[in-house]
Formats: sequence, structure tokens, C-alpha cells
Amino acid sequence: MSRAFNFSAGPATLPESVLRQAQDEMLEWRGSGASIVEHSHRGPEFIQVAAEAEADLRTLMSIPEDYAVLFLSGGATTQQALIPLNFAAAGQTADYVVTGHWGKTAIKQAKPYVAVNTVASSEAGGFRDIPARGEWQLSKDAAYVHITANETIHGVEFRDTPDTGDVPLVADFSSSIASEPVDVSKYGVIYAGAQKNLGPVGITVVIVRRDLLERAGQNRADIFNYASHLKGESMLNTPPTWNWYMLGLNMKWMLAEGGVAEFARRNAEKAALLYSVIDGSGGYYRNEVAAAVRSRMNVPFFLHDEALDKPFLSEAKAAGLMALKGHRALGGMRASIYNAMPVEGVKALADFMKDFQQRHG
Amino acid sequence: MSRAFNFSAGPATLPESVLRQAQDEMLEWRGSGASIVEHSHRGPEFIQVAAEAEADLRTLMSIPEDYAVLFLSGGATTQQALIPLNFAAAGQTADYVVTGHWGKTAIKQAKPYVAVNTVASSEAGGFRDIPARGEWQLSKDAAYVHITANETIHGVEFRDTPDTGDVPLVADFSSSIASEPVDVSKYGVIYAGAQKNLGPVGITVVIVRRDLLERAGQNRADIFNYASHLKGESMLNTPPTWNWYMLGLNMKWMLAEGGVAEFARRNAEKAALLYSVIDGSGGYYRNEVAAAVRSRMNVPFFLHDEALDKPFLSEAKAAGLMALKGHRALGGMRASIYNAMPVEGVKALADFMKDFQQRHG
Repeated sequence: MSRAFNFSAGPATLPESVLRQAQDEMLEWRGSGASIVEHSHRGPEFIQVAAEAEADLRTLMSIPEDYAVLFLSGGATTQQALIPLNFAAAGQTADYVVTGHWGKTAIKQAKPYVAVNTVASSEAGGFRDIPARGEWQLSKDAAYVHITANETIHGVEFRDTPDTGDVPLVADFSSSIASEPVDVSKYGVIYAGAQKNLGPVGITVVIVRRDLLERAGQNRADIFNYASHLKGESMLNTPPTWNWYMLGLNMKWMLAEGGVAEFARRNAEKAALLYSVIDGSGGYYRNEVAAAVRSRMNVPFFLHDEALDKPFLSEAKAAGLMALKGHRALGGMRASIYNAMPVEGVKALADFMKDFQQRHG
Repeated sequence: MSRAFNFSAGPATLPESVLRQAQDEMLEWRGSGASIVEHSHRGPEFIQVAAEAEADLRTLMSIPEDYAVLFLSGGATTQQALIPLNFAAAGQTADYVVTGHWGKTAIKQAKPYVAVNTVASSEAGGFRDIPARGEWQLSKDAAYVHITANETIHGVEFRDTPDTGDVPLVADFSSSIASEPVDVSKYGVIYAGAQKNLGPVGITVVIVRRDLLERAGQNRADIFNYASHLKGESMLNTPPTWNWYMLGLNMKWMLAEGGVAEFARRNAEKAALLYSVIDGSGGYYRNEVAAAVRSRMNVPFFLHDEALDKPFLSEAKAAGLMALKGHRALGGMRASIYNAMPVEGVKALADFMKDFQQRHG
């Protein structure tokens, strides 16, 4: 087959122009005698690539100067362990709001290091809603409050930024970073694996208010110390250079396309289109998330009869629509429609869904 | 310029055929509708890539069945923190042999977690030799003994495997893994960032005797637990899939070229050629490492007059020989001649060095 519309939840689809540039430059980067993947991270070629990627990300997300940006390995899960190690004293309380699978993962990684207080959870309701801010039982002296901005599996997304007062808000933005304008100054820490909305797998972005890096945190190795990573310009050890380079190409593509305002517009259009097909199907397709917090990035849905799952997936694949199978925790289907998924792809999926319903209705 | 002979210490040169295959497959992997960098790590396409890479590495290095192989992110430095967390009780003693810069780094990362006993160090002599096994002051109940198989900066390499009896030997093999046949069964743990001898940057290999994974270790997040990584087949979280894929391509290339026996032959030839030019230069070039432990991978050398460093580097670059500048800790020059550096490249460097000496003698 040729390139399909790829609805994978992550690693996810990349812009074809980014892949083509990486392809063109694979054997030699800009007349430098070597591929970027072969250059020393300390050499002028990669230093330039890294600096441009940071500058472009700062422009794209309007990151204030009093925020540091780290480019790390280890994915979001590693950050979920590093956050308490860096920002909480041993055994101090940290508040967690749980709105899906990844909120639970964040707690799992943090538990060895902090007293986790689950201040709100929508688990009893099957993670189909977000507990109202007024119901959160915040601790008096929490080190931070942790939320998952978008739940990739359950398809639940915060549509506003909760006010946590003087307690820093820490947010896992892995599956919605840079998908719309966000006021970074309302957060203490924003972290995200890059493989959904920022481009390539294998690199993680941590945006952190600089004063938080002065916290003592806990006994830990230097490689687990965010302040050391900042001092080392995210090159405390050899960083994943190719992945960083790909992130940089993706930043330039996003800026050229019109920045986060334009992606917010496209993402809203894509999500509205898909949910309207689901809601207009008379129960043939079903999404059970409360309308106000439905994710613009991950749309889980179920067919009215499980027996149709297999033909749906195989016919979709034949139509050039791939990776629609839902996460094993939920079953059913899931369409992940991140920044790099064109409106055209979602239109093709919407048309396919309507057609499938007619043929199998 | 076109592709140069690239002597970078890491990230380092890759086989051109591997880069060409990655280039060919960048937009779509084997008719699957997407690039491998866009495929879910849970999908059949990447599962196959990952499994083949492990099988090929096992074949290449003759890794026994009672050893697990993990493919992780975070580089060797992260493993230097995870090793005490996984294999030592809090505050237990661990023995470290220091033969260069990276041995010191290993201690730095381990110190928050274990009582480090430096059983031998060649630092007083400028890291130009390896203290004889008979002089090591091993602890009675050490959790493990740590060595650096090859010191990338100082150019010092163990040419045999020290016998540490029942205490597991843990070795940082970042800059010499798979460069010659090694009896894996003599080690408890072998770890290596891939970006020197295994191919791409951004992925790290940990080869560990399975019984060691039963040790309780210390309080730590699940993502810092090697046993959890093994249970999750190195997909406890999203792994650096593209980097893993590139490692796999590199494994197939190494096997096709004749495996570690053939690379041992080539590496010996390359090192002998370079050291003979240095030693035969009448002091024009200088390498001060004891002959018996000179590295086959990293050849640091000095010109007799520092003022010649700049012309040496610029003329080398013009001759298509790049990244020869020494590490800032030592100065001078360094030629890194890993598996993917062809004999032809070292011959070109040797010829250039002789010619440079004649012209600037």
C-alpha cells in the first residue's frame, strides 16, 4: 500500500514533508560530511539544531523566559518518577487528580517518593468525566498538584486550566501539547513525550518554572536532577540527537503551517466532525465521555455490536485508514487525531464510518 | 563536501548501507502504510523489528539464555544510577575500579545509593594504565564490582576480563561492546549506550544475568526497575522505536559482515595501523597509554607542538577526515575507530598523519 491515514495513538503519524526532509538529509546533513545522527552532540552542527528546536518550541508555545525547557529521554513515565524526586521532600504530600489510565500511572511512579493524595478521581464512573474543581479535596501543604491534561486512552481532556493557587500545577501534556494555545504561566511544570503532538518518539520535553528548580527535592543521582540537566543544557549525557532533530523539523513545520492557533482550529474541526458522525449515528457508534470534556486528540468509540469490530478494522485498513483499534483496556475503536493528522484524513474516516454503517446497518 | 571519514567519539559514524536502508524506508516501512517511526510500539510491525534486533544481538554476542537483554532509553549514565538501585541494598558497599573519566561518572551516579569503595584507580598516573588485578582491594561483601571496559576519553581498555569470584562483575561497555568476542558469562551486567559500536544514538542495551533481577534492590519507581522492564519486554513505556529499529539494521549489517570475530580482526588491524604511525613518528605524535591496555576503539594522541593542532584539524577536514579533535578534558586529538569505521578510513588517516608530519616536520 502507499502511505495511509494513520490514527495510531503514539508513536503517531508525522507530516510527510518532515519525513521527506529527514529522508533527504539521512546520508549527509547540510554539506557537513555526515548524517545528523552521526554528529557529536557537542559539535557546532548539532548544537545549532538543538538550539533552533528550543527557540522554535518557545515561539510556538509562547513559553515565558522564566521557564526552562529540557529535552530528555525516558518518556513521560520517567518524568512521573522524577517530578516528586525533584519537587517534593521525601514523604511530603502531593495531590493527584485522576481522570484516566495515565493519571493512575503518574501515581504509581510517584508513590515510592511522596505521600500521594488522590484529591479527585472519576474512576468510579469509568473515567467519562472530570470532577469539578470545587470538589477537589486539596491538601494544605502539597508539594504540587498533578493532572493529566488529556487522557490518551479514555479520551477525556481538561478544557480549562484549574486554579490551584500557590501550589504549582504539574501537568502531563503528552497527548495534547501544542494542540491549542495554552497559558504556560498557569503551570509549574508541563511535560510531554514528543511522539504524539510534537513529532518523533524517543524524546521528552519538560517545561518548568525556573524557581521550582531551586527546590532541594530528594536524595537522587545527578542524572535524575532537573537542575543538573538545565545546567548541562540537556546534554548531561549524550541526548537522543536524531529525535531532537526530528522534533526541530516538526516545530518548523508547525510554525510554517500557522502555529498553535491554526492547529487549534484544525483540531477543533477534526474533533467536531468525528463526534458528529458518532452522535448522529443513532447509537450505531457510541462515545460515552461527557460532552464538555471530550478529547480533541483521542476519540474512543464503540460499535453497537462487538461482532462488527473485525470487519470495521479490516475494511478501514483496506480503505487506507490504519491503527484504529482501541486500547486493550477499553476495547472498541480509537482515532487519534493529533496535530499531524490532516483534516482530510478525518474526513476520510468520517465518510468511511457513515458508509460502513449503511452497508452493515 | 560528500560523506567524510567521521572519527566522532559518539554519536559516531554508521555504515552507509544502514543509512541508505533507513532512507529508503523513511516514508513507508515494507508496505505497511507508515514509516516505522510512526508505528505503534504495540503493533505487529514494530514487535517484529524489536524481536529481530534482540535475536540478532544475541546471535552476534553469543548471549547465553540465562541472560536477559533490555533495550532502554537514558544512556549509560542513567544505568549508572539504576545499577545500585536494582542490585544493591541501600547503603551496601559496591566496589568500583576507576581507569578514566567514565569510571568517575559511574561513581558519581552511584554515590547517592551505595557506599562506594574505590578498589583501584589509575588517576594519580593520569589514567594511562589499569591497576593489576592483584592490587585491587575488594570488599568482603560488595554488591558488585564495577569496571569500565573501555575508557572513551582516556583510551584505556581492559584486554582481559578480571576474575571477581562470586561477586558479579558489572561493566560499562559503551565504547567497546561487540567489537570482539567476549565471554558474556563472566559478567553479571554488561551495559552500553548504542551510539558507538551498536549503531544509533538514543537507545541503551543492558545485558543482565537473570538471577540478579531477583535482588530486592532499593525503594524506587517501577520505571527504574529492571525486572519490570524485562516483564514489559522493554516496553514498560513507549520505547525509542526508531533508534531500536536502527540498532536492528546495524545488527544485521554486522552479522552479514562476518560477526564479532571479523570486527575483532578489523579493529585490531585499524588500531595497530594507527598506533604504529604514532609510535613510528619519532615523537612527532604521542600516545602515553601503557601499550598493553591501549584502546582499540579510541586513540587519543598529541602533536609534539600544540600550535600544530589547528592546522592538523583543518587540513584533516579538508582531506575528508572529520571530528578528530580530542575531548576537552585531555586536549590534543582523538580518533574513534568503532565497528562502523572501515579499515580504509584509518588508512586514509594514517597516510594523512605521515604526510602532515612531512609537510610540517
